[in-house]
Order: sequence, then C-alpha cells, then structure tokens
Amino acid sequence: MTLILSNEDITSVLSIKDCIDDLEAAYLDLDQGIAVTRQRSDTLVPSGDRIYGLKTMDGIAPSAGVGAVRINSDIVTWPSVGDTIRRVKVPAAPNNRYTGLVLLFSIETGQPLAIMPDGVIQRMRVGATSAIGANLLANQGVQEVAVLGSGWQAGAQVLAICAARPEIQTVRCFSPNRDNCEAFVREMSDQVSARIIACRDSKEAIQGAGIVLCATNAIEPVFQEDWFETGMHIGSIKMSEITPDALTKADAVVMHLGHGAPLLTKAAGLEVPDHSQGRGWEMRDRYDFSECLTLPSLVAGREVPRKSPTDRTCFVNDLGLGLQFAVVAARCLKEAEKKGLGHELPTDWFTEKEHP
Amino acid sequence: MTLILSNEDITSVLSIKDCIDDLEAAYLDLDQGIAVTRQRSDTLVPSGDRIYGLKTMDGIAPSAGVGAVRINSDIVTWPSVGDTIRRVKVPAAPNNRYTGLVLLFSIETGQPLAIMPDGVIQRMRVGATSAIGANLLANQGVQEVAVLGSGWQAGAQVLAICAARPEIQTVRCFSPNRDNCEAFVREMSDQVSARIIACRDSKEAIQGAGIVLCATNAIEPVFQEDWFETGMHIGSIKMSEITPDALTKADAVVMHLGHGAPLLTKAAGLEVPDHSQGRGWEMRDRYDFSECLTLPSLVAGREVPRKSPTDRTCFVNDLGLGLQFAVVAARCLKEAEKKGLGHELPTDWFTEKEHP
Repeated sequence: MTLILSNEDITSVLSIKDCIDDLEAAYLDLDQGIAVTRQRSDTLVPSGDRIYGLKTMDGIAPSAGVGAVRINSDIVTWPSVGDTIRRVKVPAAPNNRYTGLVLLFSIETGQPLAIMPDGVIQRMRVGATSAIGANLLANQGVQEVAVLGSGWQAGAQVLAICAARPEIQTVRCFSPNRDNCEAFVREMSDQVSARIIACRDSKEAIQGAGIVLCATNAIEPVFQEDWFETGMHIGSIKMSEITPDALTKADAVVMHLGHGAPLLTKAAGLEVPDHSQGRGWEMRDRYDFSECLTLPSLVAGREVPRKSPTDRTCFVNDLGLGLQFAVVAARCLKEAEKKGLGHELPTDWFTEKEHP
Repeated sequence: MTLILSNEDITSVLSIKDCIDDLEAAYLDLDQGIAVTRQRSDTLVPSGDRIYGLKTMDGIAPSAGVGAVRINSDIVTWPSVGDTIRRVKVPAAPNNRYTGLVLLFSIETGQPLAIMPDGVIQRMRVGATSAIGANLLANQGVQEVAVLGSGWQAGAQVLAICAARPEIQTVRCFSPNRDNCEAFVREMSDQVSARIIACRDSKEAIQGAGIVLCATNAIEPVFQEDWFETGMHIGSIKMSEITPDALTKADAVVMHLGHGAPLLTKAAGLEVPDHSQGRGWEMRDRYDFSECLTLPSLVAGREVPRKSPTDRTCFVNDLGLGLQFAVVAARCLKEAEKKGLGHELPTDWFTEKEHP
C-alpha cells in the first residue's frame, strides 16, 4: 500500500523533538557522504500577470531507507507590503489551497511508500534546523530568546529552540502588526513552558537575548548590526533578514549547506524581483558567504566556530534540502503507520510493469 | 479531482501521431523561450549490492497549461550481457514492478491534475523525438529503414518513423537474439503498414536504408563507421550507440538538447560504470558534442543541417526532458478525461491550507 497523509495526520504524529533528532542524524550522514541531497531547482514561467514556479529538491537518507522528492507547484507574486517587498504564494488551487508535496520512496525496492503535503513538515524542519544551529553556536545556559516575526515559521522557531534548550525561560517576540504578535504570544504560550512576551519593537525584544531568531517573510533586513550584542547568536531563515554589516560583525557565520542559489530555469525575458528569495541574493554582492562553515560539519563536531563566550555567532538557515524532507517524511510515515492514519492506495497505482 | 492513470489507460488514448505533433509544438516553444525544461538530475546511493537512484526532471509547457515532474525511483545494476555491459533496472517494487511517475500540474492554479506512470509515455516520446529528428534530417522519399534492437524502445522507433514518414515501405530489423527479433517483427507488423523484416546481422539491415535507427540498451557502440553510407541518416537513443568515428564521418550531428551530463549527486565513494548512461559519456572524450546543433533549432527552421542528398546526418536523441513528459502527459490527461478513464481522487488530498 502507498499511504496518502494529510497535514492533520502529520501534525498529530510529528514532534519537534523527533524532527531535531532525525535531522541531526541526517546532517551527520550528509557530512560523511552517506546521505545525499540534490541542489534545489526553480523552473519559472509567466502565468497571466503572476508567475508559475515548479520547485523541486531530492534527497536520499540511507539510514532511514528512503529517498524523497519535494515538489512545490506555486503561483507567486511579489507585492509591496508597507516598506518591504514580499514574496507571496497565492493559494490558487481549488478551495484556496497551495500545492506542495513530498513523495517518499524505498531505497530497497524503489516503490512509493507515501505521498504527503509539505506544509507542516516544511515548517517543522526549518524550525528544527535553526534550533540545531543555535544549539551548536549559542552560549550554554542562554535563558532569554528573541523572535522577530509572528507567522507560521516563527512558531516553529519557538517550538524548536525550546525543545533544543529546555533551560530557556523567556521568549520575547516582535512583529510589526501588534494584533498578530499578541495572538502569536497566546498561541505559543500553550505550546511551550517558557514565558512568551510581546514587545513594542525589535530592539526591546532583542536586548539581553542570548539567541535571536529571525523568522519573517520580509525580503529586506529585519536585524541591524547595532543590535548585535557581545555573545549573541542570531539565526535567520533567509539570507536577506540580516544586514551585511551585522554579518561582518559576527565572529562566525555558518550556512545551512551553502549550496548556493537554486538551479534556475526560466522563460525567456521573465523578470522577477529575485528568482527565488526576493532581494536576499543581492546580499551575495555585499557579503562573501563562500568561506562560511556549514551545518553538517558542526553537527559532526569537525568545527567549533564559537571560540569564546563573547563571540557573536550567526546561522543562516538558507535553502531547504530534499534530505530534510526525506528524513522527516520517513518519521511521519512510521508514526502514522503505527496509528493507522492516512488513506491507503494500491502501490500498483504508482508503479508499472513497463520499463521506465 | 486529481486523476490517477495507468499505462493501460495511456496506451488506449495516446497515439504516436499526437505525440509527434505535441512534441514538435513543444520544441518550437522551447526554441522561443516560452517552454522551459530543467536539466535532469541523478541522485545515487548504494542499496545492498545494487544502486538506488532517484532521477528527476521538470518541464513547463505554457501552451498546454501544464508543468510536470518526472520521477524515477530505480534499483539499478550493471551486468555484463555477452560482450557488453548493460544498465539494467530491477523491477524490485511489489509484483515485480518499476517505479516511474509523472506528476502533472496546472500553471494557472498550481494544482495537481494527474499522476501517471512514465513507462508508456517514456517510450512514445523517445520514439516520437527520434522521428522528429529523422524527419528533419533524412532525405525526402526514403522508403527503407533499418532498426537495430528489438526491445521496448525499438518498437516505438518503428511506430514513430512510420507515422512521420508514411511513404516508408520496408523496415529491416536486427537484434542479436533471433527469437526476440522475429517476435518483434510479428508484433510490429500488426501495428504499421510497412513491411517488417528480420535480418541476420546489422550490416544486412543497414545496407541500402536511408534511415537507420539504433534503439538498444547496449552501452557500447552498435553502429560502425563502415556502415555509414552516403546520404544515410542515423538516429540513436543514447550517445554510446554510435562509434566516434561514425560521428566524425557525419556531415551534420544534431543533439536533442545538448544539456550535457545530468546533474549528479552521489554518496561518497560510490562507483558506477558510468553515473547514468554506462560508457556513453566516455564518448565526450572522443567526440566534441559541444558544437552540435540541437533539435529545437531544427524544428524552428533556424537550421537546415542537410545541405545535399549525399550528406550523412546523425541525430543523437540523448537525455530525456521534463518538457516531453509535460506535453505528452497533458495529452494523455485530455484524452483520458474525454473517455472517463482513471481513478479520480480528491485534489484536496494533494494540496494544503498550510503555506508550503
């Protein structure tokens, strides 16, 4: 049988703790050349006055016995929101839905084991990866965390950092929309034991925090170099969130994998603000990421970037990896099978007698 | 609804004529930068004493309103068969099946329109593409064709060339296994009006043929330069089928798209005879393909490689394109919908409320 899972199924079985543990194991395998992950690709064409993008990434996690392909079939726009330009996906599928899928395959038989949406996994693996980086880079004993952003991704950042560092006592949040920020505080307060507080501005949230996590969908910087205190760790989920001057101020900047820009294939003459991440890639002209360490080498213990408690560290959790989806989807499948969740379809529907 | 189609459904609705027409339109769009196709990627790890490979390719055909991802989840071995090494996929999925899928998406809404196996489409698009190349390169009025090979791919080559050139009277076949060759002749005789004849060796099949189509799974050359007669057109479905000397003898060599080798990501230390196509890529050391014309420019009429009836021409139909799967799968879906074929599943199973 091939299992079709929903985001509800995934939410009910996937813990942030498992997500962190599985990803750590995967980064170790990646460092050792056991696990592999194919560079993300973006293929873009105009679709009316919007852009259609087909984004794919593949990864194989031999330790979990699976390979995965993650596919996003997106309708994308780049509206101005306030002072910033945002990259906005339009839920244009029936019932106002997005299209993002993970297909999970067995490396022993090749067969499709499961098909599931990517949304919940995508959020959890971003949060978990940021927390793995923060845990390896931030000073021990940090009790105060700041989170910039109050959206879908920000929630996972809070869940994950509190799971990775149970000693965290306080999480201070800021986002420009006060109502969103307060709703976020209420929501997250139910999910972690740390105290969650809404702040009036970024500075208030950041001051005194040992770990600052940026999780916005702004494509212009939200973290300024002036705020970068001695000993502080900053995490970012995209390259554009931190100013180049702040990066320069860091004693160590670590990238997720440093794959570089996605492989871009686009229709002739198609112009986008930036092909994938908004203005983030312009950062490459202003900061040289090529010498940065990467997360797998930290997880493997081959690098220890923080040399002193006063060092400023930074983890840029840029660009997702197919491998993340392979291990987290494998976990979801395993747990869902235990609970008997999902729709079972005949595997023969997704395999063939004919030589492909 | 998202439609799940089978190879039986596809066989019952997909004509080689439609396949040729749709692909010609797609190559024209590709030449004009309207359609796009992402370079194939191969991601490989060891799986016991075999190799697990996750192969993906994406393409978007705006004229058909679709994007597609083709996925192969393969168990691969490289056994020696007679004097040659072959790349053999093992049908290791339940019921001795292979895993190859095409996912078709709408570029207007992003939604998944259909999921179908790739096997029949894969064969038909290879045949159709070879025929498009042969039709544009071979002399007018050719009545005799040779086919080397008697397998799954060889059949599509015969179907397609007979559809593209209805004036063809005779197809002479050779393959090393006489029984296979005769079974092939019987099978193909029912499907085309041309006379199909089994030959005792390659030379007998080739002599006097205006078009020679190689369609084997050998990864060492099956066409020798001595056989390359004046005015002859040779087609090949992989780079390794034709000797470098034969290529050098050609007045014009045209590649499918000339994308170059697939993007390879593999486990550390993993060795394969060649990462994807067996020894074919060694050819690149012995023949410079970089200056070759490509099929889209021929379809667009921007290039006319044959300058005289005595020219020898060659079309190397190397490496599949996601775009081929997009247009042919779109055709299959359209025709299947007319006939009410396939399993309908709720599109909500493959979309999500959560932001991906």
